[in-house]
Amino acid sequence: MQTLWDHRYAQRTQRMAGSAIRELLKVVEDPEVISFAGGFPAPDVFPIKEFKAACLKVLDENGPQSLQYGATEGYLPLREMIARHTARYGIEVTPENILITSGSQQALDLLGKIFINSGDRILVESPTYLGALQAWNAYGAEFIPVPFDENGMITDALEERLRVGPKFMYVLPNFQNPTGVTLSFERRLALIELAERYGVPIIEDDPYGQLRYEGEHLPSLSVLDSQTRNQNICYSGNVIYLGTFSKTLAPGIRLAWVIAPPEVIRKLVLAKQGADLHTSTFNQMVAYEVSHGGFLNEHVKFIREVYHKRRDVMLETLQEHMPVGVSWTHPSGGLFLWVTLPEHIDASDLFKEALEKKVAFVIGAPFFPQGGGKNTMRLNFSNASPEKINEGINRLGDSVKYYLEKKK
Amino acid sequence: MQTLWDHRYAQRTQRMAGSAIRELLKVVEDPEVISFAGGFPAPDVFPIKEFKAACLKVLDENGPQSLQYGATEGYLPLREMIARHTARYGIEVTPENILITSGSQQALDLLGKIFINSGDRILVESPTYLGALQAWNAYGAEFIPVPFDENGMITDALEERLRVGPKFMYVLPNFQNPTGVTLSFERRLALIELAERYGVPIIEDDPYGQLRYEGEHLPSLSVLDSQTRNQNICYSGNVIYLGTFSKTLAPGIRLAWVIAPPEVIRKLVLAKQGADLHTSTFNQMVAYEVSHGGFLNEHVKFIREVYHKRRDVMLETLQEHMPVGVSWTHPSGGLFLWVTLPEHIDASDLFKEALEKKVAFVIGAPFFPQGGGKNTMRLNFSNASPEKINEGINRLGDSVKYYLEKKK
Repeated sequence: MQTLWDHRYAQRTQRMAGSAIRELLKVVEDPEVISFAGGFPAPDVFPIKEFKAACLKVLDENGPQSLQYGATEGYLPLREMIARHTARYGIEVTPENILITSGSQQALDLLGKIFINSGDRILVESPTYLGALQAWNAYGAEFIPVPFDENGMITDALEERLRVGPKFMYVLPNFQNPTGVTLSFERRLALIELAERYGVPIIEDDPYGQLRYEGEHLPSLSVLDSQTRNQNICYSGNVIYLGTFSKTLAPGIRLAWVIAPPEVIRKLVLAKQGADLHTSTFNQMVAYEVSHGGFLNEHVKFIREVYHKRRDVMLETLQEHMPVGVSWTHPSGGLFLWVTLPEHIDASDLFKEALEKKVAFVIGAPFFPQGGGKNTMRLNFSNASPEKINEGINRLGDSVKYYLEKKK
Repeated sequence: MQTLWDHRYAQRTQRMAGSAIRELLKVVEDPEVISFAGGFPAPDVFPIKEFKAACLKVLDENGPQSLQYGATEGYLPLREMIARHTARYGIEVTPENILITSGSQQALDLLGKIFINSGDRILVESPTYLGALQAWNAYGAEFIPVPFDENGMITDALEERLRVGPKFMYVLPNFQNPTGVTLSFERRLALIELAERYGVPIIEDDPYGQLRYEGEHLPSLSVLDSQTRNQNICYSGNVIYLGTFSKTLAPGIRLAWVIAPPEVIRKLVLAKQGADLHTSTFNQMVAYEVSHGGFLNEHVKFIREVYHKRRDVMLETLQEHMPVGVSWTHPSGGLFLWVTLPEHIDASDLFKEALEKKVAFVIGAPFFPQGGGKNTMRLNFSNASPEKINEGINRLGDSVKYYLEKKK
């Protein structure tokens, strides 16, 4: 039915595509489908008992405050806790450097709002996180893809792209979404050196950094950047860092944070006032109660064990069930791995095939800002149980084999 | 300290002013100050016991789901509950017409994102809700103020303004923020008739509609609009309606909703995917548990009693303590009343005076999109106890008298 709203949409709505992922998730609501599609934490790792205790404590001791409006910047004890946590990883920040957001997706949106003019060029890994492309498309960003291999963004290919004057770079250095790849230490150093030389700041998105299953923790880009300058007490580097509770505590509470120079935080606060006033006071207080006093650190160790096992099962079963010509990444952490099919295979056709065999994945193409990747797919290994992973990869292997046979 | 971010802000940040209200709220954190500044519900009406029971029930019965990612549209049982509630007020909608947002502020932001091109003209009451001006300024809106009196927007002044081709009108028909004024039934009819004639759709923001303390409920603009057309089962009118749990349940859970034609909802869903993926699953499930089964209706009756009393106390004490030449509105509901001082008084000077006497309010000028209103202020009567209201208005009366004396 026609309404007066029909011809009134802003031009930017033409750039707002639906997330291929979220659309796919609807398709796979069938409980018989084994889904490697979402980026969902395992439901069995949620600390439900601790959430119950925290809800009761917050409501008993600070009920009225927790249900009332709060400061746009976020709940101070939570920001102080994040500052202590950040210091442990080598970077001194104060609560003035921290804004609490409604998930990292909101951080991406607010950063787009304060930094991106229509036509601004943004350097991104290719492939990169789809949600960033979605958020920044609405502000008219033009994406410049930087080639990518098993050690992350190829920094040798960076220099010519830095010369075109991008507004900033967007990097996921640890167990990247969608590929699971980690930026090597050498490339981290090269990246910071080049960023400094060309005067291009960096947004470092690190949702999975704590979920490392093997190898040594690598210093974040923020840490490397702040080591190159005389850092005073309040962080004022050229790297904006994004962290989140979605993968360590629970995504359903929508809590994340931005670490940035105080002036950037002030601008983000103005943007957030207009966007949603503030993030749920109740959720912030509950997350603080659950996390502080060491629980979160212990809990992260438990999550690492669970996901480590699942990653191993997926790697083993891929080895067992995939035909020759199919390759995949070996992530040392995070939630995802990335499969490359023979060049002539279109993953979106394979998706239909796979769905008939009751297994689902995310096609890789939408993660490429300038096209390509038709023969790629992303597999999540955190959500399904080891048994389901085994069965699901078996089904997926059958689908690929069947499809290859058909194509002959 | 300088960073590479300094000269990289988008042009739109120049239009992002801080909310005068939220800045003021920081000033009045002194516990000795009696504040009529915020739009805060009374802390003593929050249903803490019911929240505790609901948190436990949700975590016991649906823990994993409540902590997991959810659909962008919102939790289906909550949307069904809102649809039933809306039907009771005379308008048939389905969950397809409803999007859950992180407070009504997010609804305003998303509507700006999908509808406003830079330079678009928006008709607004003058004064109007500051948060709408803030949200839409970021998208480059130009505001056309419509004069306003004790019966709301003056519809006789509307026609010439509709001729300039505004994108839409923004109206708060019930106990408007900031004035407390209600749009009369005759003007509602005139507004709908003019909107139809000139083909200009309406955004109806109704956070306080259920908080009426006297007089008859007036039909919403959505209802009047849908009566003028052949309405099918799925609402597809020219009025987009905004409702919220912030004033009836608690603002700290950040839960509100938009009712709109399905096509508008689909566009809002795309915008929300990029903005924050979805609103907290946990909060939606808890709000549903607290509200359904009749509790919310009973609770609203209780809130009405409490605020009715507070409004009466404020009206009585204003009568008692304000000098001649000061006038104020007599709201029949909501959270605010509006004070007009003698013309030569600047409310921002009076604010400093009042703060020394330990009482705070919000100056009226920022609520006017095109300037004016320097001699006005907004008083909130929901947050402070009757005793505090009595004492606070006494102090405010003294401040005004002192200031008038000084100005002589």
